[in-house]
Amino acid sequence: MKQPIERLYSQHTAIMKHSFIREILKVTKGVPGMISFAGGLPSPDSFPRELLARLFSQVILEEGADVLQYGASDGDRFFKQALKAFEEVPYLSDEEIMITVGSTNGIYYFTRTLIDPGDTIVCEAPGFPGSVTAMESCGARLAGIEMDELGMIPDQLRDTLRGLHDRKAAVKFIYVIPEFQNPSGRTMDLNRRREIIAIAAEFGIPILEDQPYRELRYSGERILTLWELARTEFDDPQLVTIAKSFSKILGPGLRLGFAAGPPEMIGPMVKWAQKTTVSPDCATQRVAARFIEAGHMRRHIDWIIDLYRPRRDAMLNALADCMPDGVTWTQPEGGMFVWVTLPPEINADDLFERAIQHKVAFIPGSKFYPAGIVRTNELRLNFSYSDEKLIREGVSRLAGLL
Amino acid sequence: MKQPIERLYSQHTAIMKHSFIREILKVTKGVPGMISFAGGLPSPDSFPRELLARLFSQVILEEGADVLQYGASDGDRFFKQALKAFEEVPYLSDEEIMITVGSTNGIYYFTRTLIDPGDTIVCEAPGFPGSVTAMESCGARLAGIEMDELGMIPDQLRDTLRGLHDRKAAVKFIYVIPEFQNPSGRTMDLNRRREIIAIAAEFGIPILEDQPYRELRYSGERILTLWELARTEFDDPQLVTIAKSFSKILGPGLRLGFAAGPPEMIGPMVKWAQKTTVSPDCATQRVAARFIEAGHMRRHIDWIIDLYRPRRDAMLNALADCMPDGVTWTQPEGGMFVWVTLPPEINADDLFERAIQHKVAFIPGSKFYPAGIVRTNELRLNFSYSDEKLIREGVSRLAGLL
Repeated sequence: MKQPIERLYSQHTAIMKHSFIREILKVTKGVPGMISFAGGLPSPDSFPRELLARLFSQVILEEGADVLQYGASDGDRFFKQALKAFEEVPYLSDEEIMITVGSTNGIYYFTRTLIDPGDTIVCEAPGFPGSVTAMESCGARLAGIEMDELGMIPDQLRDTLRGLHDRKAAVKFIYVIPEFQNPSGRTMDLNRRREIIAIAAEFGIPILEDQPYRELRYSGERILTLWELARTEFDDPQLVTIAKSFSKILGPGLRLGFAAGPPEMIGPMVKWAQKTTVSPDCATQRVAARFIEAGHMRRHIDWIIDLYRPRRDAMLNALADCMPDGVTWTQPEGGMFVWVTLPPEINADDLFERAIQHKVAFIPGSKFYPAGIVRTNELRLNFSYSDEKLIREGVSRLAGLL
Repeated sequence: MKQPIERLYSQHTAIMKHSFIREILKVTKGVPGMISFAGGLPSPDSFPRELLARLFSQVILEEGADVLQYGASDGDRFFKQALKAFEEVPYLSDEEIMITVGSTNGIYYFTRTLIDPGDTIVCEAPGFPGSVTAMESCGARLAGIEMDELGMIPDQLRDTLRGLHDRKAAVKFIYVIPEFQNPSGRTMDLNRRREIIAIAAEFGIPILEDQPYRELRYSGERILTLWELARTEFDDPQLVTIAKSFSKILGPGLRLGFAAGPPEMIGPMVKWAQKTTVSPDCATQRVAARFIEAGHMRRHIDWIIDLYRPRRDAMLNALADCMPDGVTWTQPEGGMFVWVTLPPEINADDLFERAIQHKVAFIPGSKFYPAGIVRTNELRLNFSYSDEKLIREGVSRLAGLL
């Protein structure tokens, strides 16, 4: 290698971006006294350690010959079975569901299945950078649709799809987080979901529904997923594929998620998985299966909700108590994030620099927009990681800087 | 979705092939009385269940707050540390090593880092289809180099590289399994390794060294890896990246492997991992770290060697005892496979159909060649999965069909 190896990089490798969020997390991690609302981390108190320790030991001793061996690329059959029962979709065939190495992994395979370089994905703006960079790494262009309090704005979605269609752009799918969205905390109501599905059906564009936070609802009524609506009300089972994660309800370190959708999508996604990871961790999958079968999951989720609800309330109350006039924020019914809008003259990227001097951290809103949309007066606050006392103190510090 | 979703598939998805080997394994799996030499499975007897059960329980109880949380995309720092000690490369920086979801995952990221559709990878013929399909899924073309008893033939490698260079093909890397190769069981000696490295250096083409079986040596002397040779004798640390697997020494269900190479390769590979899986299973990584730190790994490998050596010997002896004149086979010093060459008039694909009727299975050699090379009188036999008695009986059945 007399010549530098970089000359051999593929086109995507050569242009691959740094993750700004990872840089921010590095700056804020491990600083004594720092109150961080920056990450998207679940609280370590939410991990069911005793139960998992017991189940891992049991599964490996009793089922080790099976779970330490190579497993199916579409996932452990016991886990799929348990999952179908837990999700109350027992009628689903094994060809309509696959287990993934966390839900980003499913989003990656979905993208890999449909995207050629230059193809377009329509997404929310602001949106989740983890998914966006996974999509961009496959060569996708992102077209951002702005949001109101109920999520993606239907008229703007329709106009954008029409414009892309007229320009002969290859639009491959629509990506949404309809519940407690990351970063905005917003939730699409039932009508908004119907509107988005109707537009997708009209243009013949499938939807990827990302639902990492769905189980973490602290108030309001549970709403049918786009995936359920498309299958039932719209009688269109090909239209929506859903991705869910166990990161927020078991522990992200276990890297478990799943995707459910039509066999025409799940089939090729499994083939991509064969070539990329062969399969998720088989022992961990079986442990999750036994966890669900023993009835722990529902109880454990209720326990996490009881842990996080007071944290959300503490943050919303602290914002109401401390923030000056002209600052507004979303009222999330679940999930992990509140989205704050500052007066237009305040730049949240500048505020971030001052905030970390004062030992409070957040992610500036500008990091959540795709290229072409510039918004500098917003920020994302996480309320799942810190306890109520720290939340009140952190919001107070932040308000003091405005 | 009035129109079929298949119309939206990316180009690679549309042409993605079925795995013939997976089809074969399906046909042979669970058939009563079937003796299968087809798979590449470790014996379940080789899984250290008691130790793993204890360590999983311990790690999750004591370190759960850490290992159930999101972890670094390049891998758990304790596991990297333990691995460097075990591999006797304590001088390696953390930027030169990453943990992967099995070694195929590392091979995928290496390919993703370098390959644009249409680029060329030079590989052994016969070669490992799992890697080949991962490479083809990134759009790579494979140029197969034939092998003699010592692996890839240097003259043919040089001629092929020269020809590709003259045709202005973008050759991105050379892929080899230098030890107990899958499928042939062959091992490159030290001189052959030097020759291959010298040619790669001459053309400025990096090498991906796949070493899934390295720890499983039953006879002969351990040989320096290409990776070590390039760093030391050739003073060229950018030239070789090595991928290793824990599938054969701990259990493939745990999905653990690692890649070590220059930061210029490991860095972008980690970025691809961020977008594809975020990280490997963090609990499993920590368990593997504690397994190594406690000194179990070397003892456990010795135990597996004592399990597999008699199986290899049983297979080689049975072949010598049963096979008619004109049949030859390799003498693997380790690993899991023997490669059998039949008289030219015998078609191993036809033989396979008759063999499964007689309840013995193997993989026909034709499945291991890239497009352009047709060889129909070879077959691969696995000796790690069945015990000595079954091996003798299976080889005898097979010989009876010749």
